[in-house]
Amino acid sequence: MPKNALYAQSGGVTAVINASACGVIDAVRAHPAHFGTCFAARDGILGVLREEIIDLDQEDPLTLAALRHTPGGAFGSCRFDLGDPERDPRQYQRLVEVFRAHDIGYFFYNGGGGSMDTALKVARIGELMGYPITAVGVPKTIDNDLDATDTSPGFGSAAKFIATVVREASLDVESMHTSSTRVFLLEVMGRHAGWLAAAAALAQEYDGQPPMLILFAEVPFDQTDFLRHLHLAIERHGYCVVVVSEGLKEPDGTLFAVAQSHDVYAYTQLGGAAPRLADLIKRETGRKLHWSVVDYIQRAARHLASKVDVEQAYAVGKAAVEGVVAGHRSFMPVIRRQTSVPYRWSIGRVPLERVANIERSMPREFISPDGYGITQACRDYLRPLIDGEDCPPFENGLPCYPRIRGVLRPKRCPEFMIGTD
Amino acid sequence: MPKNALYAQSGGVTAVINASACGVIDAVRAHPAHFGTCFAARDGILGVLREEIIDLDQEDPLTLAALRHTPGGAFGSCRFDLGDPERDPRQYQRLVEVFRAHDIGYFFYNGGGGSMDTALKVARIGELMGYPITAVGVPKTIDNDLDATDTSPGFGSAAKFIATVVREASLDVESMHTSSTRVFLLEVMGRHAGWLAAAAALAQEYDGQPPMLILFAEVPFDQTDFLRHLHLAIERHGYCVVVVSEGLKEPDGTLFAVAQSHDVYAYTQLGGAAPRLADLIKRETGRKLHWSVVDYIQRAARHLASKVDVEQAYAVGKAAVEGVVAGHRSFMPVIRRQTSVPYRWSIGRVPLERVANIERSMPREFISPDGYGITQACRDYLRPLIDGEDCPPFENGLPCYPRIRGVLRPKRCPEFMIGTD
Repeated sequence: MPKNALYAQSGGVTAVINASACGVIDAVRAHPAHFGTCFAARDGILGVLREEIIDLDQEDPLTLAALRHTPGGAFGSCRFDLGDPERDPRQYQRLVEVFRAHDIGYFFYNGGGGSMDTALKVARIGELMGYPITAVGVPKTIDNDLDATDTSPGFGSAAKFIATVVREASLDVESMHTSSTRVFLLEVMGRHAGWLAAAAALAQEYDGQPPMLILFAEVPFDQTDFLRHLHLAIERHGYCVVVVSEGLKEPDGTLFAVAQSHDVYAYTQLGGAAPRLADLIKRETGRKLHWSVVDYIQRAARHLASKVDVEQAYAVGKAAVEGVVAGHRSFMPVIRRQTSVPYRWSIGRVPLERVANIERSMPREFISPDGYGITQACRDYLRPLIDGEDCPPFENGLPCYPRIRGVLRPKRCPEFMIGTD
Repeated sequence: MPKNALYAQSGGVTAVINASACGVIDAVRAHPAHFGTCFAARDGILGVLREEIIDLDQEDPLTLAALRHTPGGAFGSCRFDLGDPERDPRQYQRLVEVFRAHDIGYFFYNGGGGSMDTALKVARIGELMGYPITAVGVPKTIDNDLDATDTSPGFGSAAKFIATVVREASLDVESMHTSSTRVFLLEVMGRHAGWLAAAAALAQEYDGQPPMLILFAEVPFDQTDFLRHLHLAIERHGYCVVVVSEGLKEPDGTLFAVAQSHDVYAYTQLGGAAPRLADLIKRETGRKLHWSVVDYIQRAARHLASKVDVEQAYAVGKAAVEGVVAGHRSFMPVIRRQTSVPYRWSIGRVPLERVANIERSMPREFISPDGYGITQACRDYLRPLIDGEDCPPFENGLPCYPRIRGVLRPKRCPEFMIGTD
C-alpha cells in the first residue's frame, strides 16, 4: 500500500497559497499508484504536533476546486519553528508518532524561507529517527524574498494590487491637489526586502508619473535628501505620491517606524512607517497629506489576483508532487524565467538547503541611482508577474470564498504539549 | 443661440464621479436646441474664478467615454467655499464676469452637501447680480451623508471595496490566529457618519462572521465595554476583526484619534483611529494585531466598482441636464428606492436648499442594540448598493485610466486674485 501524503501551510498567507494546495491535492490524487490518501494538517506543522489532521475526502470536491480562487490559508497557517533536533528530540519523536499513526510518507510544506527550514528538518527525520519520510517544500511569499526562484507565488498578486491602488489613489490626489491634499503616502509590506514597494512603480505609464518617490527597505532613509526630493516633486507636479516599505531603516539600521516613534508604546510589530512619515512631513513642510497602510489587505486581495501568479502557484504545488513521483526528495520547486518578452517560464527544482532561512533583497541594479525609483531592468523583471486577471465568482456583489469543513481524522496518539500551547 | 453649459467637480472625489461627468456631457450634447457647447471648469468653482475653462470639444470622444470607468476627478476638484455674497460680492462679480465671457447659462456642480451650498449660491446670482444662470447640483459622496437621496453615487463602490477587503483580510487573520495575529483592525472613512463602516458588515454571510465589531462615528467609544466585547469575540472565534470609522468619538465628543494620541503632533487631519486603537489593544490585552487604513484607496477603487453605483452616477448626471430641459432649476437629482428586493430605483428631484450643508447620519435603528453591528433593516438597505461588477479594461496587468488633455479656452477676462492663491 502506498503511503499517505500530508500537505500544510506555513507563515504569512497569500491570495494564491490555496491554489498551491489545489496543485498538490490534484496531483497526489492523480497518482494513486504512488500515494495513498491526501490529508492536510491544520495550522501547519502545529497541526502535525497536535495531531490535527484534516480528512480531505470529507470535503466537497467543488469546495476544494474553489480554493483555487480563495485567499488566506484554507487549512490554517502558523508561525512556528521546530527546535534543534540534537538538543531536543521530543518534537521530532512526536512528528514520527503522528506520521506513523496516519501512515504518512510524504510531507508537502507550503511556505517561505523559514518554512523551508522546517521542511528540511522534517526531511532529515529519516536519517535522524529511522522513520522514512519524503519532505518537499512548496514556495510561497508575498515578499518575493525566497532565493533561487525567479519569483514566489503570492508576490505577483500583491504586486498587482499595489500597482493598481497606487494608480487609482494617485488620480484621486491629482484631482485634489490644487486646494487640498499635496502628499499621499502608501505603506506596503516588506520587512527586509523592497520588492512590493518596487511593484508600485508599475503604476507608471511614463516617466514622472506617480509614485514619484519609493522608499525601499534596502536604502537607508536620508531625511534631508528625502525632503528635498519631496519638495522638488511638489514643485514639478503639484503633488507627490510616496510609497514606503514597512521595513524602511534609518542610517544606523534601526527601523524607521520605531526610530521616529514619539509614542510611549512603539509599533515595532505593527507597521507604522506611513503615519511616522506623515508626521515628519507635516512637521517639516506643513503640507496637507493623506496616508494609507494596506497591511493584510494587499496579500489577501484575491479579487485582483494576477493570472500568472495563480498559474504559478498551482504549478509549483503540482510540480512538488510530480518531482516526488519522479524520485526526487528534499527539494523545492522553483520558477525559472526563459524570457521576459514574451514571458516564458518553467519549473525547476533546488535542494531545500539552498533556500532554507535565506532572504533575497532587491539587487542594487534594480534601484535607480538616486535610490527613489526602479530601473528598466527591474521594470522588465516585474512586468510579466502581474499579468492577466483571474477573477473569482461574485454573488450578491461580493467574491465567493468557500470554507472547507475541516473534519479532523480521529486521534490515535496521546496528547502532546508543544510548549507554546 | 442657446447658452453654454459648464460642468465642475467639487469636494472629495470618488470612483464614479467621472461617470456623472459622462452623464452630464452626453445629455448636454443630446439637446443642441437647449444648450450650446459643454465646457468643464478645472478644479471646481476655483476654475471658474480663475477662468480655467476646459474646452471639451478638444477631447477625444473615446477618452470622454472612458471616463465612465476612470476614478478620481478627471477635471480636478477643490475644497473651496464661496463667501457670503452680502458681505463680499467680489467673488460673485467675478463669476458673472467669467460666465458672461464664455456665454455660460447653465452650471452643473457635482459634489456633496458643502458643494450643494456653492451650487445654491451660484443659483442665486441671477436675482443678486442680474445675470441669468441656471445652477443644478449633481450628488456625489462616498460618505453617503447627503440628505434627501436614498444613496449618493460613490458610496456603493466604496462600500463594495470595503466589504470585499474585509472578507478577504478576515480569511487571512483566520488562517494566522492560532499562533500569530489575533486582532485585525480596519479604519475606514466617515468623519461624521458611519455608513462606510456599516458596509463592512456586508462581508458576513451569516451571523458571527467577521467583522465582529464595528465602531461607528455615531456611537461614543466606551473603552471598557469595547475591550469586553473584544475579549468575548476572541474567546468565541479565536480572533477578532474590528472596523473603525475615522470619525469615532470619545464620550465627550472629541475625536478618538486625537484623544488617544500620545504624540507631540496630533493626527487631527490624518486619520489614525486604527493605530491608536491598536496601541490601546496592545497595551490592554497584549494580543498580537495588525491594522490597516485604506484612506483614498477605498474611494478610488474603480477596479471593484459597483455596477449599480456606476449606473446611478451616470443617471444623476443625465437627470440634472434633463431636468433643466424640462424647465427645472436650482435642484439636485436624487435617487429614490421603490423596492429593495428586487432592487428598483428611479430619479427624483429636490430643491438645493433641501440638501445644502446638511449631513445625514446613520439612523439609530440601523445600528444593532449593542452598538457594534448593523440591523437587518440596514443590511436590506445596503445590500443592493454594491450589486454587480463593472470592470474597467485592463492592459499590461493594470486597469486603463485615460487622462483628458484639458485644453483651456483662451482667457477673456483680467486676472483675479481669489485670496487662497
